[in-house]
Amino acid sequence: MMKELSLSKVYQLLEPGPVVLLTTARKGRANVMTMSWHMMVEFEPPLVACVVSGANHSFAALHATRECVIAVPSVRLAPKVVKTGNSSGRDIDKFEAFGLTPVPAAQVAPPLIDECFANLECKVSDAALVNKYNLFVLEVIKAWIDPAQKNPKTIHHHGYGKFAVDGRMIKLKSRMR
Amino acid sequence: MMKELSLSKVYQLLEPGPVVLLTTARKGRANVMTMSWHMMVEFEPPLVACVVSGANHSFAALHATRECVIAVPSVRLAPKVVKTGNSSGRDIDKFEAFGLTPVPAAQVAPPLIDECFANLECKVSDAALVNKYNLFVLEVIKAWIDPAQKNPKTIHHHGYGKFAVDGRMIKLKSRMR
Repeated sequence: MMKELSLSKVYQLLEPGPVVLLTTARKGRANVMTMSWHMMVEFEPPLVACVVSGANHSFAALHATRECVIAVPSVRLAPKVVKTGNSSGRDIDKFEAFGLTPVPAAQVAPPLIDECFANLECKVSDAALVNKYNLFVLEVIKAWIDPAQKNPKTIHHHGYGKFAVDGRMIKLKSRMR
Repeated sequence: MMKELSLSKVYQLLEPGPVVLLTTARKGRANVMTMSWHMMVEFEPPLVACVVSGANHSFAALHATRECVIAVPSVRLAPKVVKTGNSSGRDIDKFEAFGLTPVPAAQVAPPLIDECFANLECKVSDAALVNKYNLFVLEVIKAWIDPAQKNPKTIHHHGYGKFAVDGRMIKLKSRMR
Protein backbone atom coordinates (compact mmCIF):
# COMPACT_ATOMS: atom_id res chain seq x y z
CA MET A 1 0.00 0.00 0.00
CA MET A 2 2.68 2.50 1.05
CA LYS A 3 5.52 2.83 -1.43
CA GLU A 4 9.05 3.75 -0.43
CA LEU A 5 10.03 7.34 -1.28
CA SER A 6 13.59 8.38 -2.10
CA LEU A 7 15.16 10.26 0.80
CA SER A 8 16.28 12.90 -1.71
CA LYS A 9 12.62 13.95 -2.15
CA VAL A 10 11.68 14.29 1.52
CA TYR A 11 12.29 18.05 1.57
CA GLN A 12 9.56 18.50 -1.06
CA LEU A 13 7.03 17.27 1.51
CA LEU A 14 8.09 19.40 4.48
CA GLU A 15 9.50 22.58 2.91
CA PRO A 16 5.96 23.81 2.04
CA GLY A 17 5.10 23.95 5.76
CA PRO A 18 2.14 21.57 6.12
CA VAL A 19 0.58 20.71 9.46
CA VAL A 20 1.83 17.22 10.32
CA LEU A 21 1.18 14.49 12.85
CA LEU A 22 4.01 13.13 14.99
CA THR A 23 3.85 9.65 16.46
CA THR A 24 5.94 8.29 19.33
CA ALA A 25 5.97 5.01 21.26
CA ARG A 26 7.05 4.25 24.78
CA LYS A 27 6.57 1.20 26.96
CA GLY A 28 4.50 -0.46 24.27
CA ARG A 29 2.09 2.45 23.92
CA ALA A 30 1.93 4.69 20.86
CA ASN A 31 0.80 8.31 20.86
CA VAL A 32 0.20 11.01 18.27
CA MET A 33 0.32 14.82 18.36
CA THR A 34 -0.27 17.65 15.90
CA MET A 35 2.71 19.81 14.92
CA SER A 36 3.32 22.91 12.80
CA TRP A 37 6.70 24.04 14.07
CA HIS A 38 9.14 22.18 11.85
CA MET A 39 11.58 22.98 9.04
CA MET A 40 14.09 21.30 6.76
CA VAL A 41 17.74 21.60 7.83
CA GLU A 42 19.54 19.48 5.21
CA PHE A 43 18.52 17.87 1.91
CA GLU A 44 20.20 14.46 2.18
CA PRO A 45 20.38 12.71 4.46
CA PRO A 46 17.21 14.67 5.25
CA LEU A 47 17.48 16.54 8.54
CA VAL A 48 14.39 18.17 10.03
CA ALA A 49 14.22 20.49 13.02
CA CYS A 50 11.06 20.61 15.11
CA VAL A 51 9.83 22.08 18.37
CA VAL A 52 7.85 19.82 20.69
CA SER A 53 6.63 21.63 23.78
CA GLY A 54 7.25 20.04 27.15
CA ALA A 55 3.50 20.48 27.69
CA ASN A 56 2.92 17.74 25.11
CA HIS A 57 2.71 14.19 26.43
CA SER A 58 4.83 13.21 23.39
CA PHE A 59 7.80 15.22 24.58
CA ALA A 60 8.99 12.70 27.18
CA ALA A 61 8.62 9.76 24.77
CA LEU A 62 10.55 11.55 22.02
CA HIS A 63 13.26 12.65 24.42
CA ALA A 64 13.65 9.18 25.97
CA THR A 65 13.35 6.94 22.90
CA ARG A 66 14.81 9.36 20.32
CA GLU A 67 12.43 8.01 17.67
CA CYS A 68 9.30 9.33 15.95
CA VAL A 69 7.33 9.25 12.72
CA ILE A 70 6.24 12.41 10.92
CA ALA A 71 2.98 11.66 9.08
CA VAL A 72 1.60 14.16 6.56
CA PRO A 73 -2.21 14.43 6.37
CA SER A 74 -4.23 15.87 3.52
CA VAL A 75 -7.14 18.25 4.08
CA ARG A 76 -9.71 15.46 4.36
CA LEU A 77 -8.07 14.53 7.69
CA ALA A 78 -8.29 18.11 9.00
CA PRO A 79 -11.03 17.37 11.59
CA LYS A 80 -8.96 14.46 12.98
CA VAL A 81 -5.82 16.60 12.97
CA VAL A 82 -7.54 19.28 15.05
CA LYS A 83 -9.04 16.75 17.47
CA THR A 84 -5.56 15.23 17.86
CA GLY A 85 -4.20 18.67 18.67
CA ASN A 86 -6.96 19.37 21.17
CA SER A 87 -6.46 16.27 23.31
CA SER A 88 -3.66 14.55 25.20
CA GLY A 89 -2.28 11.03 25.14
CA ARG A 90 -2.28 11.30 28.92
CA ASP A 91 -6.07 10.91 28.82
CA ILE A 92 -6.98 8.86 25.76
CA ASP A 93 -5.77 6.59 22.96
CA LYS A 94 -6.03 9.11 20.14
CA PHE A 95 -5.62 6.52 17.37
CA GLU A 96 -8.71 4.70 18.58
CA ALA A 97 -10.66 7.80 19.57
CA PHE A 98 -10.23 9.56 16.21
CA GLY A 99 -9.98 6.65 13.79
CA LEU A 100 -6.30 6.91 12.88
CA THR A 101 -4.81 3.53 11.95
CA PRO A 102 -1.33 2.75 13.28
CA VAL A 103 0.81 0.67 10.92
CA PRO A 104 4.18 -0.80 11.96
CA ALA A 105 7.19 1.16 10.72
CA ALA A 106 10.27 -0.56 9.25
CA GLN A 107 13.04 0.91 11.37
CA VAL A 108 11.50 2.65 14.38
CA ALA A 109 9.01 1.67 17.10
CA PRO A 110 6.49 4.54 16.59
CA PRO A 111 3.83 3.67 14.00
CA LEU A 112 3.10 5.09 10.58
CA ILE A 113 -0.44 6.42 10.12
CA ASP A 114 -2.26 4.60 7.36
CA GLU A 115 -4.58 7.50 6.44
CA CYS A 116 -1.69 9.94 5.85
CA PHE A 117 -0.30 10.27 2.32
CA ALA A 118 3.32 10.34 3.51
CA ASN A 119 5.15 8.92 6.53
CA LEU A 120 8.73 9.66 7.56
CA GLU A 121 10.57 7.41 10.00
CA CYS A 122 12.91 9.55 12.10
CA LYS A 123 15.63 9.30 14.72
CA VAL A 124 16.72 12.21 16.90
CA SER A 125 20.16 13.16 15.62
CA ASP A 126 20.81 16.20 17.79
CA ALA A 127 19.33 17.17 21.14
CA ALA A 128 21.68 20.08 21.88
CA LEU A 129 18.88 22.68 21.83
CA VAL A 130 16.22 20.59 23.57
CA ASN A 131 16.81 22.03 27.02
CA LYS A 132 16.80 25.61 25.78
CA TYR A 133 14.04 25.58 23.12
CA ASN A 134 12.54 22.04 23.02
CA LEU A 135 14.14 21.95 19.56
CA PHE A 136 15.00 18.50 18.19
CA VAL A 137 17.02 17.82 15.03
CA LEU A 138 15.69 14.64 13.42
CA GLU A 139 17.16 12.50 10.68
CA VAL A 140 14.67 10.90 8.30
CA ILE A 141 15.92 7.34 7.79
CA LYS A 142 13.03 5.90 5.78
CA ALA A 143 10.19 7.57 3.85
CA TRP A 144 6.86 6.24 2.57
CA ILE A 145 4.29 7.64 0.20
CA ASP A 146 0.77 6.42 -0.58
CA PRO A 147 0.53 6.38 -4.39
CA ALA A 148 -3.27 6.05 -4.17
CA GLN A 149 -3.55 9.62 -2.85
CA LYS A 150 -3.04 11.79 -5.94
CA ASN A 151 -2.14 15.48 -5.56
CA PRO A 152 -2.99 15.63 -1.86
CA LYS A 153 -3.82 19.10 -0.55
CA THR A 154 -2.17 19.91 2.76
CA ILE A 155 -3.23 22.41 5.42
CA HIS A 156 -1.25 25.31 6.91
CA HIS A 157 -2.11 26.65 10.36
CA HIS A 158 -2.76 30.38 10.80
CA GLY A 159 -3.67 30.09 14.49
CA TYR A 160 -6.80 29.21 16.47
CA GLY A 161 -8.00 26.46 14.14
CA LYS A 162 -7.83 28.59 10.97
CA PHE A 163 -6.05 26.81 8.11
CA ALA A 164 -5.10 27.68 4.54
CA VAL A 165 -5.69 24.72 2.22
CA ASP A 166 -3.32 24.27 -0.73
CA GLY A 167 -4.82 25.92 -3.80
CA ARG A 168 -3.51 26.03 -7.34
CA MET A 169 0.07 24.99 -8.13
CA ILE A 170 2.29 27.34 -10.12
CA LYS A 171 5.58 26.53 -11.82
CA LEU A 172 8.23 29.16 -12.40
CA LYS A 173 11.54 28.72 -14.13
CA SER A 174 13.97 28.24 -11.29
CA ARG A 175 17.47 27.09 -10.53
CA MET A 176 16.40 26.44 -6.92
CA ARG A 177 16.36 22.78 -5.91
CA MET B 1 1.83 52.80 5.02
CA MET B 2 3.09 49.86 7.09
CA LYS B 3 1.27 49.41 10.38
CA GLU B 4 2.89 47.95 13.47
CA LEU B 5 1.79 44.37 14.23
CA SER B 6 1.64 42.97 17.74
CA LEU B 7 4.54 40.58 18.39
CA SER B 8 2.00 38.10 19.77
CA LYS B 9 0.64 37.61 16.22
CA VAL B 10 3.94 37.01 14.43
CA TYR B 11 3.61 33.21 14.61
CA GLN B 12 0.42 33.41 12.54
CA LEU B 13 2.51 34.69 9.63
CA LEU B 14 5.33 32.14 9.73
CA GLU B 15 3.70 28.99 11.12
CA PRO B 16 1.91 28.34 7.77
CA GLY B 17 5.31 27.92 6.07
CA PRO B 18 5.33 30.63 3.37
CA VAL B 19 8.33 31.32 1.19
CA VAL B 20 9.90 34.50 2.56
CA LEU B 21 12.56 37.02 1.64
CA LEU B 22 15.41 37.74 4.03
CA THR B 23 17.28 41.04 3.90
CA THR B 24 20.69 41.79 5.38
CA ALA B 25 23.01 44.81 5.32
CA ARG B 26 26.75 45.06 5.62
CA LYS B 27 29.17 47.90 4.96
CA GLY B 28 26.33 50.09 3.74
CA ARG B 29 25.08 47.57 1.19
CA ALA B 30 21.79 45.71 1.52
CA ASN B 31 21.06 42.30 0.06
CA VAL B 32 18.05 39.99 -0.19
CA MET B 33 17.67 36.21 -0.51
CA THR B 34 14.78 33.77 -0.80
CA MET B 35 14.19 31.35 2.08
CA SER B 36 11.86 28.44 2.82
CA TRP B 37 13.66 26.72 5.68
CA HIS B 38 12.29 28.48 8.76
CA MET B 39 10.01 27.66 11.68
CA MET B 40 8.58 29.22 14.82
CA VAL B 41 10.37 28.32 18.05
CA GLU B 42 8.51 30.44 20.62
CA PHE B 43 5.32 32.53 20.58
CA GLU B 44 6.41 35.61 22.51
CA PRO B 45 8.86 37.08 22.34
CA PRO B 46 8.68 35.49 18.88
CA LEU B 47 11.67 33.27 18.18
CA VAL B 48 12.22 31.92 14.68
CA ALA B 49 14.77 29.34 13.57
CA CYS B 50 16.07 29.42 10.00
CA VAL B 51 18.76 27.79 7.91
CA VAL B 52 20.88 30.03 5.70
CA SER B 53 23.35 28.09 3.61
CA GLY B 54 26.96 29.20 3.59
CA ALA B 55 26.62 29.21 -0.21
CA ASN B 56 24.36 32.26 0.12
CA HIS B 57 26.05 35.65 -0.02
CA SER B 58 23.71 36.66 2.84
CA PHE B 59 25.24 34.14 5.24
CA ALA B 60 28.36 36.20 6.04
CA ALA B 61 26.34 39.38 6.56
CA LEU B 62 23.85 37.67 8.87
CA HIS B 63 26.63 35.96 10.81
CA ALA B 64 28.69 39.17 11.19
CA THR B 65 25.95 41.76 11.84
CA ARG B 66 23.44 39.45 13.60
CA GLU B 67 20.54 41.38 12.07
CA CYS B 68 18.02 40.69 9.31
CA VAL B 69 14.49 41.37 8.17
CA ILE B 70 12.08 38.59 7.19
CA ALA B 71 9.70 39.96 4.55
CA VAL B 72 6.62 37.96 3.53
CA PRO B 73 5.58 38.22 -0.13
CA SER B 74 2.19 37.35 -1.58
CA VAL B 75 1.77 35.34 -4.78
CA ARG B 76 1.85 38.42 -7.02
CA LEU B 77 5.54 38.76 -6.13
CA ALA B 78 6.30 35.12 -7.02
CA PRO B 79 8.31 35.93 -10.19
CA LYS B 80 10.49 38.38 -8.21
CA VAL B 81 10.88 35.86 -5.39
CA VAL B 82 12.16 33.22 -7.83
CA LYS B 83 14.52 35.66 -9.57
CA THR B 84 15.86 36.65 -6.14
CA GLY B 85 16.46 32.99 -5.37
CA ASN B 86 18.19 32.39 -8.69
CA SER B 87 20.78 35.16 -8.38
CA SER B 88 23.44 36.27 -5.94
CA GLY B 89 24.16 39.54 -4.20
CA ARG B 90 27.78 38.90 -5.12
CA ASP B 91 26.90 39.80 -8.69
CA ILE B 92 24.01 42.27 -8.67
CA ASP B 93 21.89 44.64 -6.60
CA LYS B 94 18.76 42.50 -6.47
CA PHE B 95 16.53 45.30 -5.13
CA GLU B 96 17.27 47.38 -8.21
CA ALA B 97 17.38 44.46 -10.67
CA PHE B 98 14.00 43.04 -9.65
CA GLY B 99 12.11 46.14 -8.52
CA LEU B 100 12.00 45.46 -4.79
CA THR B 101 11.87 48.70 -2.79
CA PRO B 102 14.02 48.85 0.35
CA VAL B 103 12.48 50.87 3.19
CA PRO B 104 14.42 51.76 6.37
CA ALA B 105 13.60 49.56 9.35
CA ALA B 106 13.08 51.00 12.84
CA GLN B 107 15.55 48.97 14.88
CA VAL B 108 17.88 47.13 12.50
CA ALA B 109 20.09 48.14 9.58
CA PRO B 110 18.67 45.72 6.96
CA PRO B 111 15.72 47.19 5.08
CA LEU B 112 12.06 46.26 5.01
CA ILE B 113 10.66 45.46 1.56
CA ASP B 114 7.85 47.80 0.62
CA GLU B 115 6.06 45.34 -1.71
CA CYS B 116 5.79 42.62 0.98
CA PHE B 117 2.63 42.48 3.10
CA ALA B 118 4.56 41.80 6.31
CA ASN B 119 8.06 42.64 7.53
CA LEU B 120 9.74 41.32 10.68
CA GLU B 121 12.81 43.04 12.13
CA CYS B 122 15.05 40.38 13.67
CA LYS B 123 18.22 39.99 15.72
CA VAL B 124 20.16 36.75 15.96
CA SER B 125 19.55 35.49 19.48
CA ASP B 126 21.38 32.18 19.28
CA ALA B 127 24.16 31.06 16.96
CA ALA B 128 25.00 27.80 18.76
CA LEU B 129 23.98 25.62 15.79
CA VAL B 130 25.38 27.84 13.03
CA ASN B 131 28.65 25.98 12.65
CA LYS B 132 26.97 22.58 12.55
CA TYR B 133 23.81 23.28 10.52
CA ASN B 134 23.85 26.97 9.46
CA LEU B 135 20.88 27.21 11.82
CA PHE B 136 20.20 30.64 13.34
CA VAL B 137 17.67 31.38 16.08
CA LEU B 138 16.25 34.86 15.51
CA GLU B 139 14.20 37.07 17.80
CA VAL B 140 11.59 39.23 16.11
CA ILE B 141 11.85 42.63 17.80
CA LYS B 142 9.45 44.65 15.64
CA ALA B 143 6.77 43.57 13.17
CA TRP B 144 4.98 45.47 10.40
CA ILE B 145 1.94 44.69 8.31
CA ASP B 146 0.58 46.44 5.21
CA PRO B 147 -3.14 46.92 5.87
CA ALA B 148 -3.71 47.72 2.18
CA GLN B 149 -2.97 44.09 1.22
CA LYS B 150 -6.15 42.23 2.18
CA ASN B 151 -6.07 38.43 2.57
CA PRO B 152 -2.69 38.00 0.89
CA LYS B 153 -2.10 34.56 -0.58
CA THR B 154 1.36 33.19 0.16
CA ILE B 155 3.37 30.59 -1.75
CA HIS B 156 4.86 27.31 -0.49
CA HIS B 157 7.82 25.74 -2.27
CA HIS B 158 7.60 22.11 -3.40
CA GLY B 159 11.01 22.09 -5.10
CA TYR B 160 12.36 23.18 -8.50
CA GLY B 161 10.20 26.29 -8.85
CA LYS B 162 6.90 24.53 -8.15
CA PHE B 163 4.76 26.34 -5.57
CA ALA B 164 1.40 25.74 -3.92
CA VAL B 165 -0.58 28.98 -3.63
CA ASP B 166 -2.85 29.41 -0.61
CA GLY B 167 -6.36 28.30 -1.52
CA ARG B 168 -9.52 28.40 0.58
CA MET B 169 -9.38 29.06 4.32
CA ILE B 170 -11.12 26.65 6.68
CA LYS B 171 -11.94 27.18 10.34
CA LEU B 172 -12.26 24.28 12.75
CA LYS B 173 -13.16 24.45 16.40
CA SER B 174 -9.81 24.30 18.14
CA ARG B 175 -8.16 24.88 21.47
CA MET B 176 -4.82 25.27 19.69
CA ARG B 177 -3.37 28.78 19.78
